[in-house]
Amino acid sequence: MLRKNRLFTPGPTPLLPAAQTAMASFSAHHRTADFRALFLRVLADIREFIGSRNDVLVLACSGTGMMEASVANLTSPGDKVLVLAAGNFGERWVGITKAFKCDVEILTAPAGETFSLSETRSRLSPDVRAVYVQATESSTGTRHDIEGIAKLVRANGNDTLLVVDAITGLGTTHLDVDGWGVDMIIGGSQKALMIPPGLAYSAISERAWQRMEKTTSPRFYFDLRKERKAAAKGEAAYTPATSLIAALGASLDFVRAMGNGSVAKGREILVDNAELCAAMTRAAVRALGLRLLSSSPAAAITTIYSPEGMDSGIIIKEFRESFDAVVANGQGDMKGKIFRIAHIGYYDYLDTIGILGALEHVLARCTGGDVEYGAAVRAAQQVYAHTACNKRQLVDA
Amino acid sequence: MLRKNRLFTPGPTPLLPAAQTAMASFSAHHRTADFRALFLRVLADIREFIGSRNDVLVLACSGTGMMEASVANLTSPGDKVLVLAAGNFGERWVGITKAFKCDVEILTAPAGETFSLSETRSRLSPDVRAVYVQATESSTGTRHDIEGIAKLVRANGNDTLLVVDAITGLGTTHLDVDGWGVDMIIGGSQKALMIPPGLAYSAISERAWQRMEKTTSPRFYFDLRKERKAAAKGEAAYTPATSLIAALGASLDFVRAMGNGSVAKGREILVDNAELCAAMTRAAVRALGLRLLSSSPAAAITTIYSPEGMDSGIIIKEFRESFDAVVANGQGDMKGKIFRIAHIGYYDYLDTIGILGALEHVLARCTGGDVEYGAAVRAAQQVYAHTACNKRQLVDA
Repeated sequence: MLRKNRLFTPGPTPLLPAAQTAMASFSAHHRTADFRALFLRVLADIREFIGSRNDVLVLACSGTGMMEASVANLTSPGDKVLVLAAGNFGERWVGITKAFKCDVEILTAPAGETFSLSETRSRLSPDVRAVYVQATESSTGTRHDIEGIAKLVRANGNDTLLVVDAITGLGTTHLDVDGWGVDMIIGGSQKALMIPPGLAYSAISERAWQRMEKTTSPRFYFDLRKERKAAAKGEAAYTPATSLIAALGASLDFVRAMGNGSVAKGREILVDNAELCAAMTRAAVRALGLRLLSSSPAAAITTIYSPEGMDSGIIIKEFRESFDAVVANGQGDMKGKIFRIAHIGYYDYLDTIGILGALEHVLARCTGGDVEYGAAVRAAQQVYAHTACNKRQLVDA
Repeated sequence: MLRKNRLFTPGPTPLLPAAQTAMASFSAHHRTADFRALFLRVLADIREFIGSRNDVLVLACSGTGMMEASVANLTSPGDKVLVLAAGNFGERWVGITKAFKCDVEILTAPAGETFSLSETRSRLSPDVRAVYVQATESSTGTRHDIEGIAKLVRANGNDTLLVVDAITGLGTTHLDVDGWGVDMIIGGSQKALMIPPGLAYSAISERAWQRMEKTTSPRFYFDLRKERKAAAKGEAAYTPATSLIAALGASLDFVRAMGNGSVAKGREILVDNAELCAAMTRAAVRALGLRLLSSSPAAAITTIYSPEGMDSGIIIKEFRESFDAVVANGQGDMKGKIFRIAHIGYYDYLDTIGILGALEHVLARCTGGDVEYGAAVRAAQQVYAHTACNKRQLVDA
């Protein structure tokens, strides 16, 4: 049978056709009025997508680049920072803050769990210069309580900045960036915005901009103050990734159209969409008798334990061989133990039912039987029918 | 929930991404060596796709245009022709042959049925100049027995030409064009070749080329002799649809790659794919207690009766509103009675499971209940598992 290559990975995610077209056809030079107009529009839309009134930046780098920028700009060597690490991407904060010679305090949580707020509070003190955390830990599919953590950080005083890696979280979870007082929130292009990797974006608070004037960590490409000045004129300090900016513009147009003229409303619809895909998938997984890893499951990605005694790599391989569907393995310690199905961005009912039907087939092949065909799909359909009917009642009311 | 616009119609069909890219990026002029090289390659590949050693043409027109060309070139006013008509596209042959003032003998079959070979034989006589038929009648999802019909026509002598509209049939059903002695077989771009509408193609026997020298029906744009001369040099008599030719080239490259270097083998894989999608769909439909229209079902399209007392338009509307999935209504007399789900070209397991899951949801909404979620999907999964396992055994053996 034909096999279409399909990504169910937590980035890159399926591409928006209109963004692909925009990307393929764009060729303008970046030091022109046309590009400046495009870039200014994208920056304004990204601000609305993030849901912040703060200045925003879009850089040519992966999400990790912007994570590094947040450390290089907001800390000086020897600064005390608190890293909340509950998986592979939490560990990345540890790696970056150590590379920049911070005095790193680490609060961990077991795989699939989130942080205790009381423990978080106990690690905060007035000398903590910054707190680094993920909105969603992609390696375990766990959503962290950013609102709760932000309350603690803000209560700790204005000398403590809160930096949130929301690369997977933006567009898959509801975030009140300014209301909660997040100082730097970080997104990436290859996630809910449905375009290829290559861009990272961020909204940065006044507290954070002021901090940058005093910090001494080395930075050049990632000197965000230069980018802020350039962005005000619709420019980038160095050569911007122009075709990706064009793709981002088209993606944000799509989000705006979904939201009936509002990027913010479109983002909420994207979040609801991920929530529904995830709820369908969790119901399906339970119907198959499989176990979920996360006790605080993110809408972005569902993490599923492999059946007892089976390396999850076998399941992932079967998805690929039978259907050319790309499902993610665990990372670090969780490799071979779990597999991960993402719901970030451009997925619909048919995609979700399709991958769950494929999951049933894959499990039947890998376990040699005892899978009731249709059972996982049925559970997902029931979740959808329940949600869709409720929505219709609301609309009709 | 997000809704991706998805075609399950018997043309246009889902587009091949590589063909879209080729189409979007092509801009060469048609009177150049580059275009001639492309066009000659496409003509050679189309010949292999059709599976004929006869000369082939690719014209800028819809399939109906090439149908008209087959009448305008192969008949003279007053010529006796036999039309085998078992649906909307059979009626189109009647319309064209009458427009060109043929003496039209019509053999019909009820909707969903194919022709009796003995009745067909009884309508043939030495003075029948041409027989017109569909390989697959798209309006009813019925496959006709072209091999059986061709045997009768060839037994009738070399003065009777056999013209087959295989617009839906090419790439969805196995055809031995030269072996059976089909004189003109007609295909369209928006079907199994996975590109947009706008091109029709045909392989034409020596018997048919000779006939054209003597016929007197009026033709100019559709004078196939001019096109044959032009095609020999990699040209078209009039301006060719260049971007669609580029798309067709990319599509045929894809078919060749599927066939490990052979367009003919790739076509067989496409046919098998449609067969499997159709078998999955028929099993699903039976599991839902719905009735199939056709007693000779084509792999190209499954035609399904609407539940007793329900206009099929309601089902089609619900597919569109809930999922933006485009399923076809019946045509002519069958409008409102059936709905049609196509399997032509670029469909895989996830598409098929997805649309069948959607069908369950649509039926539950339209009938107000009593649909067992997952039942249709399960039946389809069983067909797939059985077929896939057999194939693997063959490969392993």
